Amino acid sequence: MAGPTLRDVAAEAGVSIRTVSNVVSDYPYVADETRARVQAAIDRLGYRPNLLARSLKQGRSHVIALVVPELDVPYFAELARLIIAEGRERGYLVMIDHTDGDKNLERELILQNARPMNFDGVILSPLALSGADLSERPPGAPILLLGEKSFDSLADHVAIDNVAAADEATTHLIDIGRSRIAAIGVQPSGYDTAKLRLKGFRRAHRRAGIPVDRSLLMTAARFHRTDGAEAMRRLLARPDRPDAVFCFNDLLALGALRAVLAEGLRVPEDVAIVGFDDIEDGRFSTPTLTTIAPDKQTIARRAIEQILTRISKSDDDAAPLEIRAPFRLAIRESTAGGGSRRQAGTNRRSHP
Amino acid sequence: MAGPTLRDVAAEAGVSIRTVSNVVSDYPYVADETRARVQAAIDRLGYRPNLLARSLKQGRSHVIALVVPELDVPYFAELARLIIAEGRERGYLVMIDHTDGDKNLERELILQNARPMNFDGVILSPLALSGADLSERPPGAPILLLGEKSFDSLADHVAIDNVAAADEATTHLIDIGRSRIAAIGVQPSGYDTAKLRLKGFRRAHRRAGIPVDRSLLMTAARFHRTDGAEAMRRLLARPDRPDAVFCFNDLLALGALRAVLAEGLRVPEDVAIVGFDDIEDGRFSTPTLTTIAPDKQTIARRAIEQILTRISKSDDDAAPLEIRAPFRLAIRESTAGGGSRRQAGTNRRSHP
Repeated sequence: MAGPTLRDVAAEAGVSIRTVSNVVSDYPYVADETRARVQAAIDRLGYRPNLLARSLKQGRSHVIALVVPELDVPYFAELARLIIAEGRERGYLVMIDHTDGDKNLERELILQNARPMNFDGVILSPLALSGADLSERPPGAPILLLGEKSFDSLADHVAIDNVAAADEATTHLIDIGRSRIAAIGVQPSGYDTAKLRLKGFRRAHRRAGIPVDRSLLMTAARFHRTDGAEAMRRLLARPDRPDAVFCFNDLLALGALRAVLAEGLRVPEDVAIVGFDDIEDGRFSTPTLTTIAPDKQTIARRAIEQILTRISKSDDDAAPLEIRAPFRLAIRESTAGGGSRRQAGTNRRSHP
Repeated sequence: MAGPTLRDVAAEAGVSIRTVSNVVSDYPYVADETRARVQAAIDRLGYRPNLLARSLKQGRSHVIALVVPELDVPYFAELARLIIAEGRERGYLVMIDHTDGDKNLERELILQNARPMNFDGVILSPLALSGADLSERPPGAPILLLGEKSFDSLADHVAIDNVAAADEATTHLIDIGRSRIAAIGVQPSGYDTAKLRLKGFRRAHRRAGIPVDRSLLMTAARFHRTDGAEAMRRLLARPDRPDAVFCFNDLLALGALRAVLAEGLRVPEDVAIVGFDDIEDGRFSTPTLTTIAPDKQTIARRAIEQILTRISKSDDDAAPLEIRAPFRLAIRESTAGGGSRRQAGTNRRSHP
């Protein structure tokens, strides 16, 4: 039987979970009146601090930094909301910084611990950081990596299987009868997300016995709407335009969608479109967007659980964990046809 | 003539602006090698720390907290990116938290300084906090408020003129010949943003001599796409549906747009739509979205400038400033007609 939780005590005392956590861990800056109220709630409910709460007494800040490349990319904003909520549930404040993919910032963050803040841990979604950078890292606050870069087990890492996801997205386009499929988001070098998704795209073609037309592999400077629209306009200007496109994220796909409709063409009849990320925008566009939906809730929960495990055992030298989160293909109007009277709907295929 | 800046030194030394700032202010946790490299760059360029940089020596953290209601609302994510960049330019790290509009969290943040972090200042976009809460605030780190709540000059405040903006959006719908104009985003109580925008909506009607049909004032639980879609579906189910709708933010407008198109109706021919915020989504939707575009760059710059002014003069008791940022009406396809072949385009009307 589970006993009362921090959340129960917070509700009873009419304060936030973080304040209860501050009281439990004897954090000094809590008003006496608040402390008394929380203590009364603890007594009434018979709350017993768990091991984690006790470890908090050992000079911890209860603060985790979450560092993402771009806060205004909806995927990161949606994920940040979930990670903040998972942290808060456990009495942890999660503060966000974004690097804009600046390698100097990412390196300093990891290598120098040069922040004037006392973070208990860092959750980082790196863009520019390399495995070599990471292996130079001195001992310090635990770090956990999110996303698609492959770091060969240099730190705990939570991600979905990007190759399998891109394969499934591409296979879906082949299954609905498309044979000239473009990819938008290819990167000439360095960016692992793009490499893994291209690998899945190629694998699906190979399995179906369809050759990949290399001239349909479109690079994108960034993964923003404007890059997707520009790549799509170049594709549409060709005499042999594609009948489908797999975009390496939803922003690219929404830009591509805009470019197709602005030309007076139909989606999916003339060009079918699949994205990646399942951001909310794609559930409200017209047509709605077929996409790979990573299980963001699981990513957030596992990230917080794992970094708190590292924090609570500060002498932990267990091997880094590779944590796989599930994903599914959400099939919507941009590949499933249907007129403008269709309601937004989602078919689901689940993955472990 | 302006001398070399932190940015110039950072470029010369190949480090981030923050690291230069850390060196200049004798922050202890900078690697010796890095410190030497920055010092060499300072010497080469003849950089002289300014007053602000010198004030940083006085035990400051160089960190500002930016607290927004909802990180995954694109307006806040876009604004956060700009505020982070403005802070970074000046050697300040801006960390983000979101409250989800939780009044307990907002109160604790402001009233108790109960954070285990040493922020030099707090920029807060409050949802639930009241003026009464704010007036109880003990002395502490400077605070600056963003957004539309009216606080009667209890703290420095940066915002656009919401009444004028809503008036202009509504007047635009009247100017294109619409007479049954709905509003989506009305709030029964408490939420100042909605009140001010409704006030502008009414003022535009009054000036044009058009009565407001109260049954077209649609409430919305939150300002999300799903709330906009739901309100629009209720409007479309009426025998006397509106010919235009002013949505109190772009997410509501994008949800409303989806609902209209899903019914097989045309935008703007059957229903014209105006939003508020100028988020990127609305520049890539089909049709593109007419909206009120607050000057986010100015909001970000003035917010950082003003809070740094307060931080640098910690005994400052000057009266709180009310800072007005400009806005403009961005006219796009959702009110300007044009078929699917139209390119996304924007007409501008500027405001002081």
